[in-house]
Amino acid sequence: MILMSGKDCSNYIKEEIKKELNNINNKLKLVVIRVGEDAASKVYINSKKKACESFNIDFEEIVYPDNITDDILINKINELNNDTKVTGILLQLPIPNHLNKDKIINTIDYKKDVDGLTTINIGKLNNNEKSIIPCTALGIINMLKYYEVNLEGSNVVIVGRSNLVGKPLIPLLLKNNATVTVCHSKTKDLKSHLLNADIIICAVGKKHLITKDMVNSGAVIIDVGINRIDGKLYGDVDFDNVKDIASKITPVPGGVGVMTVTSLISNIIECYKLQM
Amino acid sequence: MILMSGKDCSNYIKEEIKKELNNINNKLKLVVIRVGEDAASKVYINSKKKACESFNIDFEEIVYPDNITDDILINKINELNNDTKVTGILLQLPIPNHLNKDKIINTIDYKKDVDGLTTINIGKLNNNEKSIIPCTALGIINMLKYYEVNLEGSNVVIVGRSNLVGKPLIPLLLKNNATVTVCHSKTKDLKSHLLNADIIICAVGKKHLITKDMVNSGAVIIDVGINRIDGKLYGDVDFDNVKDIASKITPVPGGVGVMTVTSLISNIIECYKLQM
Repeated sequence: MILMSGKDCSNYIKEEIKKELNNINNKLKLVVIRVGEDAASKVYINSKKKACESFNIDFEEIVYPDNITDDILINKINELNNDTKVTGILLQLPIPNHLNKDKIINTIDYKKDVDGLTTINIGKLNNNEKSIIPCTALGIINMLKYYEVNLEGSNVVIVGRSNLVGKPLIPLLLKNNATVTVCHSKTKDLKSHLLNADIIICAVGKKHLITKDMVNSGAVIIDVGINRIDGKLYGDVDFDNVKDIASKITPVPGGVGVMTVTSLISNIIECYKLQM
Repeated sequence: MILMSGKDCSNYIKEEIKKELNNINNKLKLVVIRVGEDAASKVYINSKKKACESFNIDFEEIVYPDNITDDILINKINELNNDTKVTGILLQLPIPNHLNKDKIINTIDYKKDVDGLTTINIGKLNNNEKSIIPCTALGIINMLKYYEVNLEGSNVVIVGRSNLVGKPLIPLLLKNNATVTVCHSKTKDLKSHLLNADIIICAVGKKHLITKDMVNSGAVIIDVGINRIDGKLYGDVDFDNVKDIASKITPVPGGVGVMTVTSLISNIIECYKLQM
C-alpha cells in the first residue's frame, strides 16, 4: 500500500509554484472577504494568509459584521475587480443566509475568482474551456497525477455531489477519460457501486462511511472527509481497516486537506495569467 | 413493455406550450443563423421553421457563406441581442472550422440562447440555477417524467459525453436524485455498467451498439442515436431484440428525436420569460 501524502505532493506543487513566481515581476495580492465571526472560517483564512506570506503574495482580509447587506458587499467586490493591484478575490463561505450568495459570488470577475465558484468558471469547466478550478477538486486531480494513478478507462466513483468537490470533479475526470459514477445520499446500494470502483473519491463528511467490505482489493482511495469528533480528526474512510486492501490511500489528516491551500496559490497565479 | 412515444409526449408538451403562449401578448421570434450549405442543417432548420409557424412564432433564417469571418457573425449576433423583437437566437451547428465557435456562441445573450450552449447557461445548469437547457437533454427529461420513470435512487447510465446530450444530463439527473454513471468510448467494460442500470440513455451514434445481452431485464431505455444507413434510420440500441426485456423503450425514429424541436419551442418561451 502506498500512502498518498498531501505534504509530499504539496511540496512538489510548491516547487512548481516558485518557478512560476520567479517569472512574474509583479506583486500578486489576494483579498479575502469574511462576513461574521465563524471560528472555523477564521482558522481557514489564517492558513490561507500563511500560505500567501510564504510565497511573498500580499494578503488582505476585509471583515464585515453579520448584518451586512448585499449592496455593500457587491460594491466592495466591484471596487476590488477594478483594482489592478488585486489578483484574486475570495469570499469565505459560509455567509449568513439573508445574503444572496449566488449574486455576490457572481459579482467577482471570473478572472479574479480564485475559488472557481462563479457561474462563468463553472460553465467553462463543464465546457472543457480553460477555467479556475475549485481548490479541493484541483488538489485531488494533482494528487492523482503526482501518484501516477491511471485515470483513462478507470472506474471512478465519486461519493458526494457538492459544488466544491463532487460536481467539479465530474468534468475533470471525464476529460481524463475516466468512467465516472456519482453517488450520494439517495444512492440505493452504495456498496455495490464502490465494489466496482478502481478509484473512490469520498467527500461526504461522515466518519468511517466507507468500510473494508465496501472496497475492492487494489482500489485507490481519496478521502476528502474531515470529521472532528471529540477533538480528533476522522476521514470518511475507515482508514485503519481499509488501508491493507487499498493500493493507494490518502490519510486524514495529512491527505487532501493539505493540498487545498496549495491549490489556492496555484489559482492566484492562474488568475494573474488570465489578467495579463 | 411500454413504447415511449416521442409523438405522444410531444403532443402533451405542445398543449402546455399553447397554454403558456395564450398568456403571452407579444409576438415571439426565433432567428436561426446558418453558415454554409450543409444539407442536414437545412433539413433541421426547416423542421424548426415549421414548428415555429405552427405556434405562430416568427421565424427568420440568416444565411452566410462558408468563408464568413468571426467579426461579421459577432456583429450580427450583437445586433440581434439588442433587437427587442428577437426572442431567441440559434447558431445552427456545425459551422466551418476556421470560425471561433466558443467565442461566437458566447456572444449570444444567455437570455436569447435557445440552445443553452453559452458558458453562462452551462454554468447555471451545473450550479442548479434556472437556465436554458440544451433541447435534446430537456426532451429526454420531459419524456422520462411523462412516462413516470422513477429517477430518485435509480442507477442511470449515460453512454456518450457530448455537450448537447450526455454532459447536460448529468446535473439534470443528479438534481432528480439519480445515481449517475457516464460511459464513453474509453470505458473499459460497457456491458458490466449497463447491466447495473435501471435506466440507460445512449447518445453515441453507433448502430445497435447496445444489444440484448447488455441490458437488465426491466430496464428503461432511451435511445438518442439516429444512424442513417442506406436510407434507413437505426438507433444506438438493437430495438427489435432489446424491446422484449426492457420495461420502457423509445423507438428510432419516433422517440427522442421528435422531442427536440418541441423543446426548442419551450426554450423560446423560457427565453421570453427571462427577458421580461
